[in-house]
Amino acid sequence: MKIGVVSRLDVDESIQLTQKIVEFLARKGIETLLDKSVVEHLKNYEEISCPLEEMDADIIIAVGGDGTILRTQSYISSKQIPLFGINMGTVGFLTEIDPELALKSIEQVLKGKYFVEKRTQLQIQHNQKLHTALNEVVLMTRKPAKMLHIEISVDEEIVEELRADGLIIATPSGSTAYSMSAGGPIVDPQVEAFIIVPICPFKLGSRPIVVPDKSQIKVKLLREGKKAMAVIDGQAEEEINFMDEIIFRKSKDHACFVRLTKDFYRKVREKLIKGGIC
Amino acid sequence: MKIGVVSRLDVDESIQLTQKIVEFLARKGIETLLDKSVVEHLKNYEEISCPLEEMDADIIIAVGGDGTILRTQSYISSKQIPLFGINMGTVGFLTEIDPELALKSIEQVLKGKYFVEKRTQLQIQHNQKLHTALNEVVLMTRKPAKMLHIEISVDEEIVEELRADGLIIATPSGSTAYSMSAGGPIVDPQVEAFIIVPICPFKLGSRPIVVPDKSQIKVKLLREGKKAMAVIDGQAEEEINFMDEIIFRKSKDHACFVRLTKDFYRKVREKLIKGGIC
Amino acid sequence: MKIGVVSRLDVDESIQLTQKIVEFLARKGIETLLDKSVVEHLKNYEEISCPLEEMDADIIIAVGGDGTILRTQSYISSKQIPLFGINMGTVGFLTEIDPELALKSIEQVLKGKYFVEKRTQLQIQHNQKLHTALNEVVLMTRKPAKMLHIEISVDEEIVEELRADGLIIATPSGSTAYSMSAGGPIVDPQVEAFIIVPICPFKLGSRPIVVPDKSQIKVKLLREGKKAMAVIDGQAEEEINFMDEIIFRKSKDHACFVRLTKDFYRKVREKLIKGGIC
Amino acid sequence: MKIGVVSRLDVDESIQLTQKIVEFLARKGIETLLDKSVVEHLKNYEEISCPLEEMDADIIIAVGGDGTILRTQSYISSKQIPLFGINMGTVGFLTEIDPELALKSIEQVLKGKYFVEKRTQLQIQHNQKLHTALNEVVLMTRKPAKMLHIEISVDEEIVEELRADGLIIATPSGSTAYSMSAGGPIVDPQVEAFIIVPICPFKLGSRPIVVPDKSQIKVKLLREGKKAMAVIDGQAEEEINFMDEIIFRKSKDHACFVRLTKDFYRKVREKLIKGGIC
Repeated sequence: MKIGVVSRLDVDESIQLTQKIVEFLARKGIETLLDKSVVEHLKNYEEISCPLEEMDADIIIAVGGDGTILRTQSYISSKQIPLFGINMGTVGFLTEIDPELALKSIEQVLKGKYFVEKRTQLQIQHNQKLHTALNEVVLMTRKPAKMLHIEISVDEEIVEELRADGLIIATPSGSTAYSMSAGGPIVDPQVEAFIIVPICPFKLGSRPIVVPDKSQIKVKLLREGKKAMAVIDGQAEEEINFMDEIIFRKSKDHACFVRLTKDFYRKVREKLIKGGIC
Repeated sequence: MKIGVVSRLDVDESIQLTQKIVEFLARKGIETLLDKSVVEHLKNYEEISCPLEEMDADIIIAVGGDGTILRTQSYISSKQIPLFGINMGTVGFLTEIDPELALKSIEQVLKGKYFVEKRTQLQIQHNQKLHTALNEVVLMTRKPAKMLHIEISVDEEIVEELRADGLIIATPSGSTAYSMSAGGPIVDPQVEAFIIVPICPFKLGSRPIVVPDKSQIKVKLLREGKKAMAVIDGQAEEEINFMDEIIFRKSKDHACFVRLTKDFYRKVREKLIKGGIC
Repeated sequence: MKIGVVSRLDVDESIQLTQKIVEFLARKGIETLLDKSVVEHLKNYEEISCPLEEMDADIIIAVGGDGTILRTQSYISSKQIPLFGINMGTVGFLTEIDPELALKSIEQVLKGKYFVEKRTQLQIQHNQKLHTALNEVVLMTRKPAKMLHIEISVDEEIVEELRADGLIIATPSGSTAYSMSAGGPIVDPQVEAFIIVPICPFKLGSRPIVVPDKSQIKVKLLREGKKAMAVIDGQAEEEINFMDEIIFRKSKDHACFVRLTKDFYRKVREKLIKGGIC
Repeated sequence: MKIGVVSRLDVDESIQLTQKIVEFLARKGIETLLDKSVVEHLKNYEEISCPLEEMDADIIIAVGGDGTILRTQSYISSKQIPLFGINMGTVGFLTEIDPELALKSIEQVLKGKYFVEKRTQLQIQHNQKLHTALNEVVLMTRKPAKMLHIEISVDEEIVEELRADGLIIATPSGSTAYSMSAGGPIVDPQVEAFIIVPICPFKLGSRPIVVPDKSQIKVKLLREGKKAMAVIDGQAEEEINFMDEIIFRKSKDHACFVRLTKDFYRKVREKLIKGGIC
């Protein structure tokens, strides 16, 4: 078994815990790869250093918050390596356990006492380029406080012409992230659907729409002279021009997560309280 | 081919159109059954009179609004007879065509130029009794302006303890009905899901939840001394007592609709504008 | 100085604290009146027993939650007696202090170290009868899950014709109560305004409206055959018939509260967290 | 009497109507000033050309939509010149009449058959600089899809620490503009209040807050390294840095509008329908 380890870098406790985990794995004799960017923050780990994009492991332990998970997933999106998230963030919907249980749970995982949960991802196609999103894609104008004017279709049927600050296309995993702030519903990850949520729509009656994940969602930028951008999982950005089409489909690759328990709703409740969201 | 015909009774135009349709079918030589309650409003149709609950037809033409469709469906819920709705209501999400196209479209249907769309229904179990809902079940206290205190579980996992004016459990068909007024999302009928929507929740952060339609949703009344009621498709009522459990599952029977076109989103847009909803 | 004391009766701790307060006032030699309904739950206080509606005191101490305050205020609404609320409820927006500080704070009040905050009340006129509300009036149909069809005017100008489950007319004090669950804004008690909030409106674009409290708000029931009711501060009920008009104005009488500190927003934050609302 | 005339420039019909109005005023022998930027689009009006910032008139006729009104007002904000808006925009909440009634209504105005409505404006203070807003100020991060982390105080009392996409501080005039898209209530212009509306708040329970317009609202940027910007009436922009404070107060100067009728709510209803907002 080969374990990869990554960490957020802006929180000292996260790097310290990551070091503890690496030492723990060494004592257990487990082959370990440590993300190159973490190695730069520690000494004496050059030997096991590995760039994230080349990390071929059986499991990757990600120490951090949802941002760390999303960044890690963006590097390995087609490899389907199970991620095991240890929560050093504020919310951590995508992480599995709290830091104080880190070593104990890793031991459990090494013994094979876990299961892998697959989560649907979005594939985004724009100008022959393909991207993958685990949580959501946000379309916005490049200028804050200016409206986007777009046309949304589902399976070639026009859904609506929309003027809004922005538009979110989210997976069920993303339903408890940014989509929720914009008024979207919580969607159980077992529901085979995507969510289309307008941000501050001009038309007051506009509503979030839940569509089958086997659909093809197409968004077209209608207003000349106004550039927009797509922000993918809060990370990468892609510029959109007048009359450009962006096409959203279900990705053939899942994101995979190491899970110790099954309880989605307990997690939602706990995380909402912990994150001071609700 | 045997055609059943029903009508709303509180609008004269609806009864007149129903008569026209019955005459049209007679001229075509089609065997026709007319709902007994309509016969009571007209003369000379005793011969083809038939109580709705005994109406065994290949297709039932329902002249009226969504209320008419829901009432008709409540009588035939397990028979899967395709309903063809002619819109004499304010909104008519569940109807297929406007009255001025009635005869022309019926002719088209008689020629077999239509398809049947199946819609998921909810099965409600309470105290050994079973009910079926096409749109939604609303749980409310018997006294207006008093709060319900309930526990919601999905597949035996507790989702939340909720204090609210009421709770809606809706199908995708019901997502454009009452659920929408309470803040629920629009759900494409092809999404295999139910929607749980709190009405005026005490906890401000409460959100609509979309769950797989293969789930079992259980609602338990927590507060002693407060009776509640379940209103099924805005029609039947069922009294709920302290610690009663109500169980919601996907019904094995679909509702069936005669459709001439496929366009769900055009219908949503048109009906929203026509109904002055949005 | 004469002090009145009232309590909620359904919570033992509240009655016990009330007894402690009465004993404390006796030791201090303060003339005290105890609400007759509390006297019935205790022994040996017949001498100071007084029906709430006859309680002429300089200050009334109310032990309980917002319900207790609203009920007490409904009996003394035109007398402008300052209420000092000790919070034995779940939320207690209208109460001033927590029970563990009860005696200490009462001592402070006896020394005159407090100020009186005046809160605007609504006067409701219907069929020659007048009522007063501190928080809100809720209009609903008598049958749950049926819609109200009403016309709203402000100063004789029609605002809108509305179909909705109900309508709330609230004061700023009521803005953090039921109105908030229905989507209304938080209104600082210093803003001279009333809030009109539809409950589950049929028209998706309907919004809460904030109007000057010098306005006259008129609501007319448009739909024949559908009775409605007005629920005043969650207490009294009044039946409304077809074409009845209900007129809302600012009451000439304020509700008066004993306050030790000025901080409205800290209270909102604390209460929201304590009440698990947010 | 001296009349100023301005127009939006991106719509030909607007410039044509403006020319008609100028000719009409000439025939009537009224002294007229035409905005320099319009003169550049027409021939032969150099004689009456006047830069907007120097336009000292008794009334300014503004042909365009709300954007034109806001831009004009930003140039004359302290002069209190009554604006008469002729609606060539999509919504035009701030305009008074439709283009087909332009000449007839101007004749009525020239005869003195109108009244002037005063609308409250916001004064914004940031780094010793002062700005004025008629509708609203929007605070946002410079990077789309990144959150703002701010502290809001009212009269030196902390209201809340907020993480959100942005924050709107609006006047009652602005309540039917951007604030409404973000979930804010409609506020009658006679209510002496400002509205604080979070945009996509992280904390789901966050609500719009209505505060007295005699208050001082202070917003402080809490997160180092994240720049923000203030957009004033959708026009001017101001950069905000870490720990900067922005102070909002009622401006001593009103915006003044020429009005022919009094009906605020009819306008709201009509404009909502015309603008396809609702």
